[in-house]
Amino acid sequence: MSHINENIQLEFIISHAKAYGFIFPSSEIYNGLSAVYDYGQYGVLLKNNIKNFWWKSMVQLRKDIIGIDSAIMMDTNIWKASGHINAFNDLMIENLNTKSKHKIDILIEEYIENKIQKEINNAKIILGNSFNEEYFIKNNTNIIALNLKKKKIFEQMFKLLKSNNIAEIKSLLIELEIINNNWGNIQKCNLMFKTKLGYTDDKQIDIYLRPETAQGIFSNFSNVQKTGRMKIPFGIAQIGKAFRNEIIARQFIFRMKEFEQMEMQFFIAPHEDKKWFSYWKNIRLKWYLSLGLDKYYFKFKNHTKLAHYANAATDIEYKFPFGFKELEGIHSRTDFDLRNHQKFSKKKLQYYDPYKKCCYIPYVIETSAGLDRIFLSIFSYSLKKELLPNGNSRIVLKLPPTIAPIKAAIFPLVNKDGLPEIAINIFNKLKLYYNIIYEEKESIGKRYRRQDAIGTPFCITVDYESLSDNNVTIRFRDSMLSKRVSIKNLKKFLENHINMKILLKKIINIYNKN
Amino acid sequence: MSHINENIQLEFIISHAKAYGFIFPSSEIYNGLSAVYDYGQYGVLLKNNIKNFWWKSMVQLRKDIIGIDSAIMMDTNIWKASGHINAFNDLMIENLNTKSKHKIDILIEEYIENKIQKEINNAKIILGNSFNEEYFIKNNTNIIALNLKKKKIFEQMFKLLKSNNIAEIKSLLIELEIINNNWGNIQKCNLMFKTKLGYTDDKQIDIYLRPETAQGIFSNFSNVQKTGRMKIPFGIAQIGKAFRNEIIARQFIFRMKEFEQMEMQFFIAPHEDKKWFSYWKNIRLKWYLSLGLDKYYFKFKNHTKLAHYANAATDIEYKFPFGFKELEGIHSRTDFDLRNHQKFSKKKLQYYDPYKKCCYIPYVIETSAGLDRIFLSIFSYSLKKELLPNGNSRIVLKLPPTIAPIKAAIFPLVNKDGLPEIAINIFNKLKLYYNIIYEEKESIGKRYRRQDAIGTPFCITVDYESLSDNNVTIRFRDSMLSKRVSIKNLKKFLENHINMKILLKKIINIYNKN
Repeated sequence: MSHINENIQLEFIISHAKAYGFIFPSSEIYNGLSAVYDYGQYGVLLKNNIKNFWWKSMVQLRKDIIGIDSAIMMDTNIWKASGHINAFNDLMIENLNTKSKHKIDILIEEYIENKIQKEINNAKIILGNSFNEEYFIKNNTNIIALNLKKKKIFEQMFKLLKSNNIAEIKSLLIELEIINNNWGNIQKCNLMFKTKLGYTDDKQIDIYLRPETAQGIFSNFSNVQKTGRMKIPFGIAQIGKAFRNEIIARQFIFRMKEFEQMEMQFFIAPHEDKKWFSYWKNIRLKWYLSLGLDKYYFKFKNHTKLAHYANAATDIEYKFPFGFKELEGIHSRTDFDLRNHQKFSKKKLQYYDPYKKCCYIPYVIETSAGLDRIFLSIFSYSLKKELLPNGNSRIVLKLPPTIAPIKAAIFPLVNKDGLPEIAINIFNKLKLYYNIIYEEKESIGKRYRRQDAIGTPFCITVDYESLSDNNVTIRFRDSMLSKRVSIKNLKKFLENHINMKILLKKIINIYNKN
Repeated sequence: MSHINENIQLEFIISHAKAYGFIFPSSEIYNGLSAVYDYGQYGVLLKNNIKNFWWKSMVQLRKDIIGIDSAIMMDTNIWKASGHINAFNDLMIENLNTKSKHKIDILIEEYIENKIQKEINNAKIILGNSFNEEYFIKNNTNIIALNLKKKKIFEQMFKLLKSNNIAEIKSLLIELEIINNNWGNIQKCNLMFKTKLGYTDDKQIDIYLRPETAQGIFSNFSNVQKTGRMKIPFGIAQIGKAFRNEIIARQFIFRMKEFEQMEMQFFIAPHEDKKWFSYWKNIRLKWYLSLGLDKYYFKFKNHTKLAHYANAATDIEYKFPFGFKELEGIHSRTDFDLRNHQKFSKKKLQYYDPYKKCCYIPYVIETSAGLDRIFLSIFSYSLKKELLPNGNSRIVLKLPPTIAPIKAAIFPLVNKDGLPEIAINIFNKLKLYYNIIYEEKESIGKRYRRQDAIGTPFCITVDYESLSDNNVTIRFRDSMLSKRVSIKNLKKFLENHINMKILLKKIINIYNKN
């Protein structure tokens, strides 16, 4: 069978996610809250399986990483120390003609990338089949110059920002013809949501919803290191919600106001940052590939403009239907965060290294993944329209079996003659280990299609022969082929095909080789 | 061996939870954020195991319940429809002498309960050994009268609240001598945290952090029912954070500003509410007892004052070190929520019942558990000081093995002669299935004590004999007895003692019997 289209459109992904209970717009009966989404009955299972896989990979399998779960609400001094109150801003500008609002940095990026794309398109026409895009981008002098220009513009912008010369940034953009005079003034917008602890009268305190989970790790560094008796190098991992007041929230669950992060801060001796940065880049990319996703859908993108805390940074990008975009960032954060927390809190955040016999503030390599983005990448990668040999087509969600929301569906062939009883017995045995669906309505064909659409790797049919031979038919989602299996071997069969340990063994191999 | 004290003090629980990496005060390096806590390396594992047990019990084992994960941020109309914007208030009053703030309803409760306690104390003195507290409370005419009085005061208060006569409530309290003239005015404080979507200029919208997860279920009722093709009766379950701007947040993680709920809304035909209310009361109490906790630590408390949405309500209370307090509420919510959402959203939230062949707005039985409270109940129940036969004592956390954060610790006897290699091999095998600790430092005795303190049910020691006989010594946390087990049987041993399926089998039994 063949795929009708390799690149399924985002609109189709969104409508499939809603129709099959994966993702609903939040508050939809009240016409929805922009850029906030709810996970439905299969979405929550898929999301939990991804979380679980990450957590077991990072925490359960490693002696040198432990997990925590810190609160969303934190003392405001944390955001002063981390730089978020001063520096976590978007520069926004409005196009007065179209009334659309734009982020300045995205305007600049798009401006340069459009020019680069033009160079590429021209070269493609001229060179034809002999054109190699990767080689061309690396070696074409115009493109090198454009990338340098982008770097320069950003440097200039940061300089103007530092001297608080926001009006000048507009002039710069006009000069570069990125915008014209018919645009509004530039606004500096802090991305953190603010709320108040306490009541309307006297003692209210401003606090912020965390825009990243990382600071919950830094502020607990000392408690965790001491009570867990951890020796450097070691990591602290965390999964949790974060919130950003994004103006231009878009592309479905790719950029949301409320989202979930899976972050790990790896604490190391100073000057070991290069080694560990490269180690974690490598490990994290392989983690994605262990799910069986095609490596050509992933690439590294090194940051040209670095955040205020980093001395090196790379994104792991995934080829979404709307282009290559960030899934996870690997950041070399130096000792920026711990040093600032030590300064602001006046508490010692140093570590005594028993091997080096000295005290230092640890350096940090961070791996920061967006859970919702990983969900979207796997979901859109797996969703296929297939042409069947009989001329019909089907929609199938070819999720990696170990993280599929439902592991198997049990179908009695017809609703009589003792078949439901056998099927219910199978359901009752397997539900102890996996999320299983029991379904006795509609034709087998329709039941298959429905399980295809939610990504169930195996459908188990109980038929008349089962009554005499104690076997059932297992139908494979991807190949659509069938196999007879004895009822008493079903648990073993599923264990060999869909148990999380299959994935974890791959991860152990990755760890052993690095 | 005997327990030194049955009722360990809260202060000891708090300090143990911190010293051993279960719970840290949030933002502690900045002197902590009142009534907000972070879960440390063992706390997060214990919490996740409780979540996991609840989720598997409610969702995985039941054909009639599915889960979702809705966002914390929702459209503000949801809180108008649910009544939270109007009715989710605390009435607060300040004692001008002591400057302490008090909730009015707690003042009333304490006033009556003090009087009842006096009756009980007097009767105890008079009747001595023949005194039966339960019988006395049920049959003593003074106590019956006091409970009636309490009911009357609350009714009066609600009436005054409805007519917005808050000043009159103060007069009522003075008249009853609950307070005197030297108290401030009564303030009405909404418990929801407010923040703003969008930016400081034009189009900002007020939104609230959800004070309960339930409304995320109601607002998704239609989407879930249709895409999941659910037939009534069915339930929707959810685990997630909720936020309440509590003034009097206290008793460690019992009442926090940011907390986690595990809620399930069971949608039923109207007039079947009594049956299902009693079903879920029963099931939910047995769920707690399945963990092996003593039934005398639990009791039902029927509500005398009902929330605006309920026609019946019961709390499952647990005997905390500070008295019997709510762990979980079972509420018969009628069709209050769906009916109001239908009214406010103008979207039909009716269900067509194929058996009854009619349309109706479903009734709802809710089970609403506080995850952090369950954590605290299990943690404080399990924490024991024990006197050992040799005259020493130990601190041991006798957690139910299936939810203990670390399932086993592997100790090589000394750091030489190939023992670490055997121990590391065992660790590498078992870590695929469980959270395991590997520890080679300090004496075996000290390593035992540390694992006792974090509740690890089994310590596995590799000794010289292991080199020749391939056996290891398993030491049991609770009995402190030891047993030799062959290395190749370790996985099976753990599976039989600590696997989640042991608990789930008990839950299946409970479901089958109800």
